[in-house]
Parts: sequence; C-alpha cells; structure tokens
Amino acid sequence: MQNFGCDVLRLVNPYQVAFREAVSAVSAGPILTAAREYETVGGAAADCSLIVGTTSIGHRELQHPLYLLAAAAKRIRREMPLGKVALLFGSEKFGLSNEDLSHCHWLMRIPTVDQRRSMNLGQAVAVCLYEIARSAVKPVALKKIKPAATDEIERITQMLLEASRRSGYMNPVVASSTENKVRRMVRRLRITDPDAAMWLGMLRQILWKLRNVE
Amino acid sequence: MQNFGCDVLRLVNPYQVAFREAVSAVSAGPILTAAREYETVGGAAADCSLIVGTTSIGHRELQHPLYLLAAAAKRIRREMPLGKVALLFGSEKFGLSNEDLSHCHWLMRIPTVDQRRSMNLGQAVAVCLYEIARSAVKPVALKKIKPAATDEIERITQMLLEASRRSGYMNPVVASSTENKVRRMVRRLRITDPDAAMWLGMLRQILWKLRNVE
Repeated sequence: MQNFGCDVLRLVNPYQVAFREAVSAVSAGPILTAAREYETVGGAAADCSLIVGTTSIGHRELQHPLYLLAAAAKRIRREMPLGKVALLFGSEKFGLSNEDLSHCHWLMRIPTVDQRRSMNLGQAVAVCLYEIARSAVKPVALKKIKPAATDEIERITQMLLEASRRSGYMNPVVASSTENKVRRMVRRLRITDPDAAMWLGMLRQILWKLRNVE
Repeated sequence: MQNFGCDVLRLVNPYQVAFREAVSAVSAGPILTAAREYETVGGAAADCSLIVGTTSIGHRELQHPLYLLAAAAKRIRREMPLGKVALLFGSEKFGLSNEDLSHCHWLMRIPTVDQRRSMNLGQAVAVCLYEIARSAVKPVALKKIKPAATDEIERITQMLLEASRRSGYMNPVVASSTENKVRRMVRRLRITDPDAAMWLGMLRQILWKLRNVE
C-alpha cells in the first residue's frame, strides 16, 4: 500500500490474534498501526462513493458486473477525484461472502491463468494498486544511457578489423566481405557511449601488442 | 508465479534454513519443490538469452539501461518467442549486488511513490509477472450483465411518476419539469435487465397499495 501511495487500511472483523500481533510488532508500518476495525462492510466503507469487490470468480454465481483489472482501474481513477473508493478484499480462503458482495457497486478480477485463479492476498493487493496507480505515479527521471556516436563505432570497427588482419583472422581474398560483416556485427551491439571508451581502450591495447609481436 | 503461468524458479545461494523448511513444507507447491539451486547468477541463467535485473534504484550508480515495468514487459514479451528470459530479483534487504547486475542485459523498475520504492519480494514478483502476462493471459469470458431495455426503463419511470403523483410528491404546477427530472434520474441508474424485473415488481406493489389507499 505504501509503495503505491495508499494509506487507509480498514479491517472488517479481522482474526484478532494475528491482527493484534501484527499491529504491535516493532516492524509494523504507519498504515498498519493506524488501521481501524469495523464490524460490517457497510460501516467500513460508509464514507466511500464507490465500493469495488475483488473476486477470482469460482463457483459463485455473480450478480454484479465484472471487469478485468485494467478496465476496472480506469473506472476507479475516474471516480477518485469525485469521492473515496474502497477496494474490498476477502480472506484468502473464502473470498468475499454474498453479504460482502451485496455492498459492492461492481467487481474486478486480476487476469490469471485459468488453472490458478486464486491469489495470495498481499500479492493481489499489490497488483491491484500497481494497476490503479500506474498512470498516477510520476516516476523519477529514468537514467537514459546515450548510445555511442557513429564515429566512435566506426573507430571500434576499424580497430577490430586491424586486429583481425594482424591476427590472421581475415582472409585477404574475401577481406571486403568480411569487413562488411564485422561492420554490421559491431553496429548490432548497440554500444553505449560510456562503453565505447572502454572498447576503444581495450582494442588500442590489443593492437599495440599485435603490432609489437610482428 | 503459478497465477501468471511461470513455472521455473531458480535460486542463487538461498538461505538454507528457510529454503529447506519451505521446500519440505506440506503446503509447498510444485514450483517450489522443483526449484533448483545454483552458486552463481551466471550458472542459474546459463540457458537464458535475456537476463533482466530488477531494482528500486537507490544509492547505487547504475551502469545499465533502466526501463519502467510496462516498457520492460513489452521488450520481454518480444524476446520470449526467441529464447528464455530470466528475471533476476535480489534479496529484500540488499537488492542485487554489482556482481549480480553485471550479468544483466538491462534493468527494470516498478513505478512506485518516491518515498517508498523498496517492495516486498513476493509482491514485486507478482506485479512484474502480472505486467508481463497481461496481454498473454486470455481471460475466460467475463460475465456481461445486459442493461435493461429502454421500454422497461420507461415503464419503471412511469410507475415512479404515478407513485409520485399518488403520494403527493409531485406538485401539479411544475409536474412536467419534475417528470423530466425523474426520467433523467431513472436513466442515470443504468438499471440492468435482471434488476428491472425486480424494480417493476416492487413498484407495481407500491402502486397497488397507493391506489387502494385513496
């Protein structure tokens, strides 16, 4: 929840032993220590304008419209400026009861492979919040690594070719065809700018050695 | 991993106590019991054509191109028909080491809020696999609930209007403006086909009562 900027956790009849233990743990984060308990779903979501249930659709006959997560997330984002949205998760074992579901405006489902629809609760929450936050989270500027300039790539190519000649790799009869092959190969490497300097340094050293051997 | 159709788990120097315990647990799934151990990242990913590291970018100076998860997932899907792709996750505490990172072709990051970048390992794996599988997983047909037909909506509207008149809600002077308001209000409800029958039944009953009272 913290990763995706959500900070209100409400629990409906949590299993007291586990809940008390988690809240009082040294590692309990601010969301957990501020979590409030409720006796009913209606009470927990009383101030929300949209209540979305989660389901892995099993045996139960659903009486609600059901959207896949991506479509559901769009609807949720549209609602968020207008009012609070509650995402309702059931227990891992039983999911949401029909009573719980009757409080929901509609349901959503994480697309999974058919044979394994039921998810770990924490993982399901993370995936849902990731999808809802995906367009809202403004990521820090990512590190873009500059590709090497063409002249550097060509210098690398020339040095490799010289090394091929000096090492006897290149057959002089088919030299021009080999030259083209090497040129294409070097370009396919998509060498980055910082890497180009290292390539040039290494090749320079190899060539120095090759020249001295002769 | 099972939820998103991934079935090969490889561990590099796992913490033996925890790993042995997890594998031998009754609840251990097929992926965990089949998991293989390796001493090096290179060994674990030897048969892979693409190795993607995961990072929350911290203090470390990254020497690799870095993509946000959605863009990274597209690249991964393009690679998948060509060869095996390894996703490399570090420990929750320390992430991937520089040695680990040196095996990666490039890195990806889950977009999170800036103040909380580091994620729970299981949740990070779930989010990554969800994003990579999102276009590949063919969901079962979702239950589409038919909206009610216009004539049924109009019947509901008419019955509500009659009830308003009979109950004295509607001021006869401004009746036509109220009628329009009620009509728009009923349409905004977007009543579904199965619900329309219930609405009609309830209103019919209310009207029967109202007519009998007069």
